[in-house]
Amino acid sequence: MHVTALAGGVGGARFLRGLLAHLERSPELRDTTVTVVGNTGDDITLFGLRVCPDLDTVLYTLGSAVNDEQGWGRADESYAVHTELGALGVPPEWFSLGDKDFGTHIARSLWLGQGLSLSEVTARLAQRWGLPQRGVTLLPMTDTPVETHVVLDEGAGPHAVHFQEWWVRLRARVPAQRFVVAGMDRATPAPGVLEAIRSADVVLLPPSNPVVSIGVILGVAGIRDALRGTRAPVVGVSPLVSGRPVRGHADACLAAIGVPATAGDVASLYSDFLRGWLVDEADADTVVPTGVTLRSRGLLMTDVDAAAAIAGAALSLGLELAGK
Amino acid sequence: MHVTALAGGVGGARFLRGLLAHLERSPELRDTTVTVVGNTGDDITLFGLRVCPDLDTVLYTLGSAVNDEQGWGRADESYAVHTELGALGVPPEWFSLGDKDFGTHIARSLWLGQGLSLSEVTARLAQRWGLPQRGVTLLPMTDTPVETHVVLDEGAGPHAVHFQEWWVRLRARVPAQRFVVAGMDRATPAPGVLEAIRSADVVLLPPSNPVVSIGVILGVAGIRDALRGTRAPVVGVSPLVSGRPVRGHADACLAAIGVPATAGDVASLYSDFLRGWLVDEADADTVVPTGVTLRSRGLLMTDVDAAAAIAGAALSLGLELAGK
Repeated sequence: MHVTALAGGVGGARFLRGLLAHLERSPELRDTTVTVVGNTGDDITLFGLRVCPDLDTVLYTLGSAVNDEQGWGRADESYAVHTELGALGVPPEWFSLGDKDFGTHIARSLWLGQGLSLSEVTARLAQRWGLPQRGVTLLPMTDTPVETHVVLDEGAGPHAVHFQEWWVRLRARVPAQRFVVAGMDRATPAPGVLEAIRSADVVLLPPSNPVVSIGVILGVAGIRDALRGTRAPVVGVSPLVSGRPVRGHADACLAAIGVPATAGDVASLYSDFLRGWLVDEADADTVVPTGVTLRSRGLLMTDVDAAAAIAGAALSLGLELAGK
Repeated sequence: MHVTALAGGVGGARFLRGLLAHLERSPELRDTTVTVVGNTGDDITLFGLRVCPDLDTVLYTLGSAVNDEQGWGRADESYAVHTELGALGVPPEWFSLGDKDFGTHIARSLWLGQGLSLSEVTARLAQRWGLPQRGVTLLPMTDTPVETHVVLDEGAGPHAVHFQEWWVRLRARVPAQRFVVAGMDRATPAPGVLEAIRSADVVLLPPSNPVVSIGVILGVAGIRDALRGTRAPVVGVSPLVSGRPVRGHADACLAAIGVPATAGDVASLYSDFLRGWLVDEADADTVVPTGVTLRSRGLLMTDVDAAAAIAGAALSLGLELAGK
């Protein structure tokens, strides 16, 4: 069987870690392969190096190397490079990268500079973290450099900042007026992305941010059409519990696009292709679009076991909808 | 008073640290300013980052941040980035950079990428290490990227490797047939270099490698002419003691250009502009070119005090030859 998932950062990565645990613990599912289509809208050039926060979070999490408390970055990190850059007066101080993490970014930038595509670079990094051995292929949504910018109005008139600056430095506290994904107009899906969606048995949407993660992936020409056209049921997991994001600032992102922060309203964003929607027990009475099968269960990914159970429930719903 | 010095890496940096100590301990010399013209032939792009070994060795040494045992790199280093790059299979493993050092190279590469010249970048790094406050200006010999390559004949026919590969990986044990400085044909002196030589009261040649450090600096169009034309006496310190380099592989470099490894023969390389030559007591009877004043004393820079005494002796000889 083949499962394809679209993923953002921390929530997506934890869900995927749970999915792999579920697959590896289920004898009948052990041969399942998984393709992850990762968001690259968060990508940013920092200190002259190309940083892909969401792809790296997936890599580090699946590679058992993530800083679990933080949700991103490497465990057991040191910050010698960052400290030295600070002493040299090199901004931005609001984005703190660890030394091991710098190794990833230096290698990625080197390889991109040598002419490799982001897909090729990501495949090399995935090798480092043992993804192929576990049947997992991680694809960036596109090899075209794109960057999500956030239009703010802080008093000095509307201006745009990079998504990371809004998310990390401003902690999404300044209301976003809208999101603009620079480069999206010329972005095409990375090799394998459309095929992975079309040939999947089940497509999963982890509880990633519906606007700046899943929403950005859906903005790449052809991806939304592939989801509409795939024979696989598309099953999503709500990133909201009782109207609040479990983690991150999905509510602030939804406000910017004028969508109420409810589990049902998030499902409506996907109404043209969604077949199943998993919400928290607290949201069991949420209203979902016609034709979407609603299921509820606890959605807190407190540990790998909890995430495995949630991913297993989403996959089961997908298999059920596929008639398998 | 203004002193200008041409410098390579470790030997040059230790001499300069001694010179500053001497100046700061001598009330009558305290207002002396020093311009250092640094060799950039050793520069190399590693891991996609621009590394300037000789400039950095001068910066770290004068900034009291050098790894004194090693002679280069930062004290109290960690190697997390290097370890991660190794795990990612990124060569070259023969060149080990520390995390703090990576901070320098990331900043330099960032600034160069932003369009700053190597001179401007070096000025920023010099600020970090307090050089301006001590009256020191560090200039790269040229802003043009140049790289010293070494032609070897290891059996498979002549081929060239980067100087650093010969020096660090091969430890200069494979005989060099010749040195080729790629880019030198279009290299021009960095802003301020010729003026610093022409307007100096004394020009010093520290005990740097006469072929791949001082020799490479002399290869930049106009620098040799400026040394011939300056009113300042040019005084050098022999990098050889009893025919052997105190440190490094100057003997292997001299062999490649067919020059005997004696203190006097090194002086002959500079005969068109050299006025004073300081050799070790062991070499007191060496033969120097006509017109060159020879002095001898112990030349082992065992610590800062020893280096200060040697630099003081070289400066005194220069002042004496200047009639000051």
